[in-house]
Amino acid sequence: MPHIDLGNDLPGIRSLLIYQPETGKQIVEMAETLLRAPNSLERWERELIATHVSELNECQFCATSHAAFTAAQLPGGLDLQAVRADPASALITDKLKALLDIAAAVQRSGREVTTELVDRAKAAGATDREIHDTVLIAAAFCMVNRYVDGLATTLPEDPQSYTIGAETIIANGYLPLINAAEAHAEEVPTA
Amino acid sequence: MPHIDLGNDLPGIRSLLIYQPETGKQIVEMAETLLRAPNSLERWERELIATHVSELNECQFCATSHAAFTAAQLPGGLDLQAVRADPASALITDKLKALLDIAAAVQRSGREVTTELVDRAKAAGATDREIHDTVLIAAAFCMVNRYVDGLATTLPEDPQSYTIGAETIIANGYLPLINAAEAHAEEVPTA
Repeated sequence: MPHIDLGNDLPGIRSLLIYQPETGKQIVEMAETLLRAPNSLERWERELIATHVSELNECQFCATSHAAFTAAQLPGGLDLQAVRADPASALITDKLKALLDIAAAVQRSGREVTTELVDRAKAAGATDREIHDTVLIAAAFCMVNRYVDGLATTLPEDPQSYTIGAETIIANGYLPLINAAEAHAEEVPTA
Repeated sequence: MPHIDLGNDLPGIRSLLIYQPETGKQIVEMAETLLRAPNSLERWERELIATHVSELNECQFCATSHAAFTAAQLPGGLDLQAVRADPASALITDKLKALLDIAAAVQRSGREVTTELVDRAKAAGATDREIHDTVLIAAAFCMVNRYVDGLATTLPEDPQSYTIGAETIIANGYLPLINAAEAHAEEVPTA
């Protein structure tokens, strides 16, 4: 049960977007920019970084959601279970491995991102912009994971909903979540 | 020295707002909403929560900046040094003490926010909205602290700049940082 009365019974971040649409809009816009906007990192690579950090933060709602979003956009032949179980030996590029290591450092603390980790990413072909975006995606999920779990939001009753959510995100992106939250807020005014 | 070429030599978050104005705008808008918009929590109380989390994350730029913003808005008679050194015995309300404890829990992990901590805040008079905002401010600074330190941004050469920054924030809020970043980006195009 959530720590406060959110005025709706949606799971995870969705309940918070409705409870506070103003900050909800800001968070959703950031997700759209970081995870979906044109970028030299593929969408599945950025979703994998989000999944990895959410898993390290033990945020079940975010880790399961973004794993579903990663899986739905994964290139053929890649096994997400294998990548998640052991990124170091997975069939992904050395660049992505190095970026996942930077993301894991950010999860612990910004101060854990060493010159060595950054140099290894650069040697594997990562651009400055890709290193920047990896740090910011990891940092943003350290926020969202804490927001979702810090208010003890609920998990969906039906695990199928993660897959359905993935189809919607792949088709339309994150921004429609704002309209959905605003429409709900007009229907049932919350604090 | 920053881990990547930011194309400017401004300190801390300011260098990142210029490097990536799109996400910069989103972060600044969130800061304005969380720390400055009308709220039953005073601005200095919200800045104190931001300072406390930044200090726990050992983010020197953010902790020093937001301590200056707190000090500049503190009610007469309150000694910020004393509050920061030992919030539990400081001359602040039991409600604010309980909210600072929730923020410290969020800093460790969203999962550390217990029913007991939330019940203590409610018993001290905290509303659901105040508990929500405390969790989100703490979570947002777990993002910003990691962003600032994860890219190894610099500290200002002149410590006076924190005080000057405080005067600007108190007078005009956070939003002018967006215009400053956009103006700089037009002058010197970055990646």
